[in-house]
Amino acid sequence: MNITPVIDYLEKHKDQHLKELIEFLKIPSISALKKHKPDIEKAADFMVNKLEELDLDVEKIQTPGNPLVYAQSKKMDPSKKTLLFYGHYDVQPVDPIDLWDYPPFEPTIVNDTIYARGVSDDKGQLYSHLMAIEAFRQTSTEIPVNIKIIFEGEEEGGGENIYKFTENNPEKLACDAVIISDTSQYNENTPAICYSLKGIVYMEFRVKGSGMDLHSGSFGGVVKNACNGLAEIIADLKNKDGVIQIPGFYDNVLELEQSEKEEFASLQYSDEVLKKDTGSSAPHGEKGYTTLERMWGRPTLDVNGIWGGYSGEGGKTIIPSTAGAKVSMRLVPNQNPQRIAKLFREYVLQVAHPSLEVEVDTLHTAVPVLIPRDHEITQSGINALEKGFANKAKFIREGGSIPIVATFQKSLKAPVLLLGYGLPNDNIHSPNERYLLQNFYNGNKTTAYLFDELS
Amino acid sequence: MNITPVIDYLEKHKDQHLKELIEFLKIPSISALKKHKPDIEKAADFMVNKLEELDLDVEKIQTPGNPLVYAQSKKMDPSKKTLLFYGHYDVQPVDPIDLWDYPPFEPTIVNDTIYARGVSDDKGQLYSHLMAIEAFRQTSTEIPVNIKIIFEGEEEGGGENIYKFTENNPEKLACDAVIISDTSQYNENTPAICYSLKGIVYMEFRVKGSGMDLHSGSFGGVVKNACNGLAEIIADLKNKDGVIQIPGFYDNVLELEQSEKEEFASLQYSDEVLKKDTGSSAPHGEKGYTTLERMWGRPTLDVNGIWGGYSGEGGKTIIPSTAGAKVSMRLVPNQNPQRIAKLFREYVLQVAHPSLEVEVDTLHTAVPVLIPRDHEITQSGINALEKGFANKAKFIREGGSIPIVATFQKSLKAPVLLLGYGLPNDNIHSPNERYLLQNFYNGNKTTAYLFDELS
Repeated sequence: MNITPVIDYLEKHKDQHLKELIEFLKIPSISALKKHKPDIEKAADFMVNKLEELDLDVEKIQTPGNPLVYAQSKKMDPSKKTLLFYGHYDVQPVDPIDLWDYPPFEPTIVNDTIYARGVSDDKGQLYSHLMAIEAFRQTSTEIPVNIKIIFEGEEEGGGENIYKFTENNPEKLACDAVIISDTSQYNENTPAICYSLKGIVYMEFRVKGSGMDLHSGSFGGVVKNACNGLAEIIADLKNKDGVIQIPGFYDNVLELEQSEKEEFASLQYSDEVLKKDTGSSAPHGEKGYTTLERMWGRPTLDVNGIWGGYSGEGGKTIIPSTAGAKVSMRLVPNQNPQRIAKLFREYVLQVAHPSLEVEVDTLHTAVPVLIPRDHEITQSGINALEKGFANKAKFIREGGSIPIVATFQKSLKAPVLLLGYGLPNDNIHSPNERYLLQNFYNGNKTTAYLFDELS
Repeated sequence: MNITPVIDYLEKHKDQHLKELIEFLKIPSISALKKHKPDIEKAADFMVNKLEELDLDVEKIQTPGNPLVYAQSKKMDPSKKTLLFYGHYDVQPVDPIDLWDYPPFEPTIVNDTIYARGVSDDKGQLYSHLMAIEAFRQTSTEIPVNIKIIFEGEEEGGGENIYKFTENNPEKLACDAVIISDTSQYNENTPAICYSLKGIVYMEFRVKGSGMDLHSGSFGGVVKNACNGLAEIIADLKNKDGVIQIPGFYDNVLELEQSEKEEFASLQYSDEVLKKDTGSSAPHGEKGYTTLERMWGRPTLDVNGIWGGYSGEGGKTIIPSTAGAKVSMRLVPNQNPQRIAKLFREYVLQVAHPSLEVEVDTLHTAVPVLIPRDHEITQSGINALEKGFANKAKFIREGGSIPIVATFQKSLKAPVLLLGYGLPNDNIHSPNERYLLQNFYNGNKTTAYLFDELS
């Protein structure tokens, strides 16, 4: 096929496309705040209208929460591959509003960058797919794949309707690959395909040493102190080399391949970048692995919070009765979250001082995700990115979890392509969320090139 | 001398003495609450009037806080020993008021027990000294010692005026012994002399691992987690046998003598009592010592509080930037609080993970106290108790700290007799504070017998 007219169209209509995106960004579709429910509907309708304009079959699907917007090619050609595009039209709240340099819902362009809530996460990214489809339509170029689209409005509010809908409607969403543009490139000069996400097991445990807070003079040295006992358990979770001590924890870990290690090394991630991004004085973690290997390819364990006893001003001479901690573990393929939760629980109960009462709860879990790098869709993604962004694309992994990915993999039995157009410093979820104009324009082209790759 | 008329007088005037005490208890002299300032003055004046009635020279000494009430014998006989009685006329707040079975300032007698705020701590106890003096006066029996009295009104409010006054007026308060009735007997059948108090060092330390809270997916496994690091430091403070690991910590500890261990053992303190009093499932502490030996004669270390990261409902996937802990150590003779604070600080800095920033502060200290058991005043106290309470008296120590004791020892160079008339379950500082009538009457006699012992 000849992609040139499509790319030319995108080049020529940049201003019009940006104007459209700005209208979309003006809608304060904050899913976490009930008062914005009318804006949620408005954003869903904006999507419906745009998708109808693209000559797709469109449905606004009501749920107990916010509507799903579904669309598909009017003619589904069984000889073509089918791509399912996922995105979300809702956005994060804007607090703390004082820290914004520009009003979050009055998109402002400064130095070829748009500042607006939701511009990177995810309105600007999902809009690129619509722009690519439009370019094919307007240039009468046949799209070489069948299109399916599912947009949700609860991603930032923790809603579960997309999960239920996917599990209940695998035929409707059936596809050869899922495309998600809701993540980042490696950096401004390095487009990237993320082919693995970590899973998670989030635990909480609480210990009780005495029936009430006790006077530390009267009972010091004669009963087990809950805070001391809690700290001892936490200290037993990892050794001084950062190796997790829970027996069996590493059993099913898929070791990084040599080629992955080389790919990571080629990114030349530096301690200086880490220090700058975290404010930490030095990298630290499991011995024997580089920073990127630990960040992307090794399971981790972090205390997310601790509490117990008196934390106010001055001193209170008590032996606290109870203490607690939240602990999350990020898992890699092929660790099983349920198994890890069980091992964690058993280990905490085993190492806890015998005079402590201990309760261990699992708060939530997500399975890790791995998409084969040699899969056709992954290779197509890499090629499309290199053309769209005119830079060598890299393979990266991600330490965070995107639970919908595993749901798509499991229910649709399809690979997921994480075709991120944003940047790590787009300030998503923070004040001054932003998106480079060039990433919007290059994203539009990249989706077009992806269609071309699959022709 | 003939003590019989004095004791007879006390026996015959029980009702009158109780009535007087009840008037004193009706004054809500809560030092922690500003609105009770007039009641503080009223209680101080009540003391002034009573002391004048006892034919003493009395002064109400104004301070920047609440008044001190000072009194002394009109004739100070240089051939007699001088006793300084200390007590406090202020009381604790009454919250939670809902949990009181009787109004805290309407003294109520049920089953030969008075229920009222301050009855055990310290109004009922200090009043016994006044009753004994009255009995000598009214029976024209010569008191065989010179009397000095200092009562304060800030003990429950953390005021420091008594300390300053003592340090600035050592001649005025000069004495052969200080008598304090503001502690407890061992139990209902065992009067006791407490001859040692622990000192204290109260520390706080805070650690910082990163410049801000980080996403536990993005940065898990690559920077030091402040909560994990804090827990590791705490876990390093004691080993599994409860032995404190700070180098040099035990250097100056005065080991318990064999006779002390035997005295403690004779009290037959049981695990069952400990479990009942603490709600703990089992005793725990430094290996090689009995529960009472640890409670009274060994230095201890307890975390009083910990904080860091997220402790609300559900999960928040952060690597906390900072975490902190409060840690108090109870010291025994001859440990030096300043030295221990320094050793603690050095050890925490040494064991802390090198990529943590650590701050260590000393919040407050008190020196441990030891009064020789073979001192004349201690022996006189034991004898007086045995007569007053008609039961064998024991030697006990105390795990808590009473900072004024060390101030008296240091400024006045005099031994302090802790002649406690209360019981451990008098509910001091709690709802339903109470005092057995027999302890009031026996206390009156005990102070009288103490004078007799020193004749």
